[in-house]
Formats: sequence, structure tokens, C-alpha cells
Amino acid sequence: MATTLYQHSTVAALKAGVVAGNQTLAQLLTHGDTGIGAADQLAGDVTILDGQAYQSQANGKTQALAGTVKVPFAMVHANQPTIEQTFENVDQHVFEQQLLSLYPYQNVLVALRVTGTFATMQLAVNRSAAVTDQTAQRQFEAHNVTGTLVGYYVPSFYHGVTQTGFHLHFLNEDHRFGGHVSGYRIDTGVVQLQALNALQIVTPTHDQQFLNRRQ
Amino acid sequence: MATTLYQHSTVAALKAGVVAGNQTLAQLLTHGDTGIGAADQLAGDVTILDGQAYQSQANGKTQALAGTVKVPFAMVHANQPTIEQTFENVDQHVFEQQLLSLYPYQNVLVALRVTGTFATMQLAVNRSAAVTDQTAQRQFEAHNVTGTLVGYYVPSFYHGVTQTGFHLHFLNEDHRFGGHVSGYRIDTGVVQLQALNALQIVTPTHDQQFLNRRQ
Repeated sequence: MATTLYQHSTVAALKAGVVAGNQTLAQLLTHGDTGIGAADQLAGDVTILDGQAYQSQANGKTQALAGTVKVPFAMVHANQPTIEQTFENVDQHVFEQQLLSLYPYQNVLVALRVTGTFATMQLAVNRSAAVTDQTAQRQFEAHNVTGTLVGYYVPSFYHGVTQTGFHLHFLNEDHRFGGHVSGYRIDTGVVQLQALNALQIVTPTHDQQFLNRRQ
Repeated sequence: MATTLYQHSTVAALKAGVVAGNQTLAQLLTHGDTGIGAADQLAGDVTILDGQAYQSQANGKTQALAGTVKVPFAMVHANQPTIEQTFENVDQHVFEQQLLSLYPYQNVLVALRVTGTFATMQLAVNRSAAVTDQTAQRQFEAHNVTGTLVGYYVPSFYHGVTQTGFHLHFLNEDHRFGGHVSGYRIDTGVVQLQALNALQIVTPTHDQQFLNRRQ
């Protein structure tokens, strides 16, 4: 069973300005079919679902990306969930706390996928600002949208290597709307969980900017 | 070329008290022949050199360990250094700063091995205290010892996952004296460096203590 979360580069490197794409999506997708990432120069967010990567722009507008496109950061895994449960009419914070209390995942990387209808979906419309300064993150809100939340729960000791806590991206059902999720309320949703026992971090040591940038 | 640092568990888990051995050395050594680790219940330090693991007790006394012995934490890699340089009559801090200025390894995991004679070698004689409270670390000092320093330089963004900065263990030439290094001065030493572009962290998700312990 695939239990590895494969990560290209680190959040610390992004924060230090190493934001030029330095790995192709085609290469990344050899390590998984599902995940999240950042676009070249942080011009939007990347969501990977069923082996296809999508880029969401600041206004939520989303389009499929070719395998030749390079990204500066991504996390992918092979989607093989082992737990499935339905949730209805629940706010983000209650939902996330319930997941952590229902399952013994205090110190475990967990892949999370929620398919359903969301009463509200708040997206961060300026990923660049969100990475470099959380306070500058503006929000974009949609209502009664159907689609898929995809991402990870990451224990706090991975801070620095990656974003900790819940980190989710959204892709609507026709794959034309989505982005980095900052808030949501589930109307009806099926959550699928997959515990991952390994994290493989590969850093772009072929990138001169990565080698030399002070953090 | 082997470029992966394989880590079993995390320093954060050790600090949270997940200190019972939960992986055999035999299994760990399938991922590398060189490295460092902690002993069961933090009763001493583990140093791995040329495919053999050794345990150093509080007084520096060191002995070989069988493959069936389980440890709660370890980092290993396949020793294939690409850089070799001789240093003479140099203090720890000057030596480590020179390495970082000579080589473009600001954001890179680096495996480090120094074989030589050390004018002074300070070892931390209470690993348990050192992990859980740096101020409680007592020191044990030897003079004019010949042997090998082995360990890693870890960039700061890996904080939480592992110990950052230089993390070195010492093993003397007859493998009967060694431990966790807190200071040293090189008389004459040959340093070998190996850049590692990947970190694979495998967490003991089969260990109930790991699953449930709050950090």
C-alpha cells in the first residue's frame, strides 16, 4: 500500500523566495495522482486530482496544466483511502476537530479528500501574499458549490518543512473553479482519509537559487 | 548515487516521550550503512559506521549492537562522499563555519565524516537530558583521541522533524569509546562531505505510544 507523501522543496524555501518552477508536473506525478502545490512564481495554486494538475488563478478561474509545466513546490500521494465517512451541515472547525477526535492521527500525516456540496467555500486569492505574509491573505467566497476538497493534515513537528495543520485546496465539479482553501462549511460531504507513514522530501539541489538563498 | 537521508521517527516525538525502541537496527541498516541514533529509553547514543551500529553509554563506554536491537530514533544514509579535504589545528566553530562558506550547502542536508586526531572531544553524557532539556546536558571530555566524527548538517527549516545545524557522534578507533558530540578541536582530520537531496521520514505508526502522545 502506498503510504508515502512525496514533497518537492519546502515551505521555508518558498518563503525565502525560491518561487521559480524547478520541477515538471510530469515528474511529480510519477510519485502520486493526488495533491496540492504552488504555481510558478506563486501565480496561483495547483491542485492535483485523479492524475491531472490544475492551476487556479486569483479569481478562482481554473484550468488544466500540461505535464511540461514546472512548479516550485508540491505534495503528492497515491490516492488509496482506507476510511470513508459522511458529514452533513458542519462548519470547517467543528469538522476538523471531529476528524482529529474520531481517529488516532495526532502525530500522523493524513491525506484528506472531501467530495460534496459546500454551503460556503472561502478561497485565498493571493497565494503569493499568503505564503510570505499570512496577514496579507485576501479571501474570495463562493456559496453552494459542489466539488472536491483535497489536501493534508500535517502534525505540528513538520513546521518549517511544510505547512502544518489542515492544508486544503478546492476544485469544483467541472474543474473550472478552485484554489487554496481558507474556510468552508460542508452542506453534505463524504470524507475519505488515508494515513501516510512516510514523508519523502526532495529538495531542488540543481537550482542555484535554492542552493544560495539565505533563510 | 544514493542521496537520501532516511530518518526513523522525529525529534519532536522523542521530546514528547516516545523513547521506547520501535524499529530494529537490521531494518534500519537496509537504508544505509552510516548514521546516528538514540538508544532504547535514551540510554545512550547510537553511532553507525561501516554498516555496524554501536551504543555509547554515559561514561563514553561503547559496544557493538546486534541487529535485533530496537531504537526509537535514527538517521542513516549510504556513505558515498564526493568531497574530501584535510583540516589541521582547528576549533569546532571555525571548522563548521569554514565548511558552510566553502561549499554551497546553505539549504542542503549534508552527511559529514571526519577521520583524524582530536585535541579535545567533548561528549554529552546524558542523552536523555540533552534531548528533553538542553540545559541539563553534562559534558565528558577526552584529549588527543583518534577516531571518526559522523553525522549531519541539517538546514534550519527541518526544525521539529529533526535536530538542525551540525549533529555529530564520535567513535574512537577501537570502537570502545564514543557518544553524542558537544564540542571538539581537530588536531589533524580529513573531512568527507556528501550532499543529500532527499529526506525520507518514516514514522512508527504501528507504535500506539507514537499515535497517542500529545506534543
